[in-house]
Amino acid sequence: MTESWATFGADLHLELSGGRGLRAGLAEALREAARSGRLAAGTRLPSSRSLARDLGIARNTVAEAYAELVAEGWLTARQGSGTRVAERARPRRPAAAARTRRPAGRGPSYSLLPGSPDVSAFPRAAWLSATRRALAGAPDEAFGYGRDARGRIELREALAGYLARARGVYADPDRIVVCAGFAHALMLSAAVVRARRTREMAVEGYCLDIHRDLLARAGTRTRPLRVDGEGARTGDLGAGVGAVLLTPAHQFPTGAALTPARRAAAVDWAGATGGLILEDDYDGEFRYDRQPVGALQGLDPDRVLYLGTASKSLAPGLRLGWMVVPPGLVDEVLAVKGATDWTSSALEQLTLAEFITSGAYDRHVRGMRLRYRRRRDELLAALAGRVAVSGIAAGLHAVLDLPAGTERSVVQSAAWQDLAVEGLSRFRHPEADLPPRDALVVGYGTPSDSAWGPTLAALSAALP
Amino acid sequence: MTESWATFGADLHLELSGGRGLRAGLAEALREAARSGRLAAGTRLPSSRSLARDLGIARNTVAEAYAELVAEGWLTARQGSGTRVAERARPRRPAAAARTRRPAGRGPSYSLLPGSPDVSAFPRAAWLSATRRALAGAPDEAFGYGRDARGRIELREALAGYLARARGVYADPDRIVVCAGFAHALMLSAAVVRARRTREMAVEGYCLDIHRDLLARAGTRTRPLRVDGEGARTGDLGAGVGAVLLTPAHQFPTGAALTPARRAAAVDWAGATGGLILEDDYDGEFRYDRQPVGALQGLDPDRVLYLGTASKSLAPGLRLGWMVVPPGLVDEVLAVKGATDWTSSALEQLTLAEFITSGAYDRHVRGMRLRYRRRRDELLAALAGRVAVSGIAAGLHAVLDLPAGTERSVVQSAAWQDLAVEGLSRFRHPEADLPPRDALVVGYGTPSDSAWGPTLAALSAALP
Repeated sequence: MTESWATFGADLHLELSGGRGLRAGLAEALREAARSGRLAAGTRLPSSRSLARDLGIARNTVAEAYAELVAEGWLTARQGSGTRVAERARPRRPAAAARTRRPAGRGPSYSLLPGSPDVSAFPRAAWLSATRRALAGAPDEAFGYGRDARGRIELREALAGYLARARGVYADPDRIVVCAGFAHALMLSAAVVRARRTREMAVEGYCLDIHRDLLARAGTRTRPLRVDGEGARTGDLGAGVGAVLLTPAHQFPTGAALTPARRAAAVDWAGATGGLILEDDYDGEFRYDRQPVGALQGLDPDRVLYLGTASKSLAPGLRLGWMVVPPGLVDEVLAVKGATDWTSSALEQLTLAEFITSGAYDRHVRGMRLRYRRRRDELLAALAGRVAVSGIAAGLHAVLDLPAGTERSVVQSAAWQDLAVEGLSRFRHPEADLPPRDALVVGYGTPSDSAWGPTLAALSAALP
Repeated sequence: MTESWATFGADLHLELSGGRGLRAGLAEALREAARSGRLAAGTRLPSSRSLARDLGIARNTVAEAYAELVAEGWLTARQGSGTRVAERARPRRPAAAARTRRPAGRGPSYSLLPGSPDVSAFPRAAWLSATRRALAGAPDEAFGYGRDARGRIELREALAGYLARARGVYADPDRIVVCAGFAHALMLSAAVVRARRTREMAVEGYCLDIHRDLLARAGTRTRPLRVDGEGARTGDLGAGVGAVLLTPAHQFPTGAALTPARRAAAVDWAGATGGLILEDDYDGEFRYDRQPVGALQGLDPDRVLYLGTASKSLAPGLRLGWMVVPPGLVDEVLAVKGATDWTSSALEQLTLAEFITSGAYDRHVRGMRLRYRRRRDELLAALAGRVAVSGIAAGLHAVLDLPAGTERSVVQSAAWQDLAVEGLSRFRHPEADLPPRDALVVGYGTPSDSAWGPTLAALSAALP
């Protein structure tokens, strides 16, 4: 037995690094041997004294490793019977076939898929500086369990100032709720609407399919509004829906700014029916030719739930968003949010607060606005005379109209050019009453600067 | 009119900082004036030329501000009628009474509430270093929308190595799912259990009330197991429940390590009934006298869903947790998690990965283990001969047994000493079949080092 144990010991590839490492290594080797079946159930182990001698280590180290595995149930130790491999230490290795190694799914080399900023432009150095200041200034309690389901007050105060100044939002830190991006905000909003009113929500006839799907999974039925060059036809809103989800600053994806008359109609509808307006201000910071269009929320802070994120202005990977909630709804939103106890990292909230109050956020947005505007101009120049481009006054995407019946083939042709791009039809609500329209939704914010040239060339080659 | 506008202009407190700031300031002032009713609906505004002259600014700046407010619906501009305050610009200021200014809720000066590490010991400098390295090394796509609902592969690989080494967990990065702390993990687990089996889950008769409440709100009925000096009586598990939530390393709050026989009974139950074991390894890193007790998960990775977090080892404020999921359940967990699109910040995931792989995590845990052990020893010394203290071999809390019928009065007496502490009864499941027990659950990890002395003195003074 001793000899086989000496062999086994060598087999363990023990790193004799001493101290805790040695005991832990021995325990893990024994555990693995029992788990794999190399040490069969019922096998009697050598005494700690003899194994220690064989391995040239302290007896106590072996005894401790044995004790650890007994406590975990791998071994049994009984007076007179020695230490044995327990019956339940049958090999339980998850079947290799069941392992779900997902392929990395390398897509096309170039992407004009909408909805993403240029993530290569994330301001790493400025963010690190803000993190340093946040870490230096954070009170100890910031590292504890958050006491306020609304999120850190430092961030809510910074956001209130910023949103009032840059987006015309009537904000108050008390009514700002920090959340983990737009999807989280939409889920919370939908839960509040469901709890109060109906299970039906109006959405724009062209809208982000993942938002529709998210609402559907949450049990909210969506009713499409027609969309035209003035944005969603809010005059069509009826009493049957409890809420409407709008993109007033820059309709996604068609690109129109909701006109004053349509804004008025939405607010009037909300006032008359008690309905709630969810304002998705996803890229309100980026406007190029015209003056910025302020948030609809300012017109009626009692009926508009304003939803914003750092996903377009900074990076989706941060998972930081915010809701500006009508006064009467704060407790309802928190009842839903608090039930899940999810808040974003306090440290990243403090970092974003620092980033905003130091002016780094404004600087970054300004720089990105110039960069995106230049790209838009280059896109227009490259396509001049070939296709009609609309939705270009703002945001990170444009709509390229195509000859009738060609959308699918152009998307396919782009794939041959190693370019990922999406057709407008993907964003069309299945029940929408809209004229047929073949078009591409081109997210010109998505590529990195270095990929931009070849991406534009691939798009140009793919167009009819 | 010109004069009143000059007054009004002065009233605006315009900061004449030039450029965008000046226009934005004017727009915000006009917006606020319309919102507050200071500019009544229908009021005709002076021409941009005359207001510009009165304010001593460029006419174009005024015209741009007017255009912005027209686009937002605050003003109307009609040929021949000039620029007027729109009808819908009625004051909509949220009623001051509805403002929900929550008081900061200053509690007692000292706290021994369990469940928190010493947040004053958060390793700020080491975390900043890890952030710096994470920012320097992150691929651009890390800042984009996460492609894998399991979380960043860098963190899952670091966790797989750490959990195998330190906790005896049979881990594979493919089966690790990063989440936003334990509550998130429990919600996801409960949803999976509900989708597969029953709406009933066994819990320990003494357990964290907020976990019970969270399950109840999610529609899962909890059935208490009896708890004694060997941990939960897993031999009582029946076929009626689809899952059991256990704290095998250190029963919360009574402090027992689940014995080998009880571990075996749990695994046997799971094998026989197809039930799922949720292992809450909340403070497995902190063990003082005995050898560390490895995770139950290693005994049967196919039936144990292992749940861990950085909340006790680092800080709850990070909201970082992880699940090690049985192979057959990965897709089910991701179906639930993916539906909500919530992942933790990619940057913090990368930072934690750096923190672990650089050895900083081990160093921090080692340092904290010494610190907590010293506190535990000081607690024992301070209370020697006065009360029986149990659950002291591990973790960040101990149980102090009290004379029958005195728990409530001791908690009250502690409050008079400016000390927050909780009685054991709070953690007792309402349906639990357990003998009466008066005790305090003392979280000695909670105070900062500087508060520790006075906190201990307050506790001592509060005891009978």
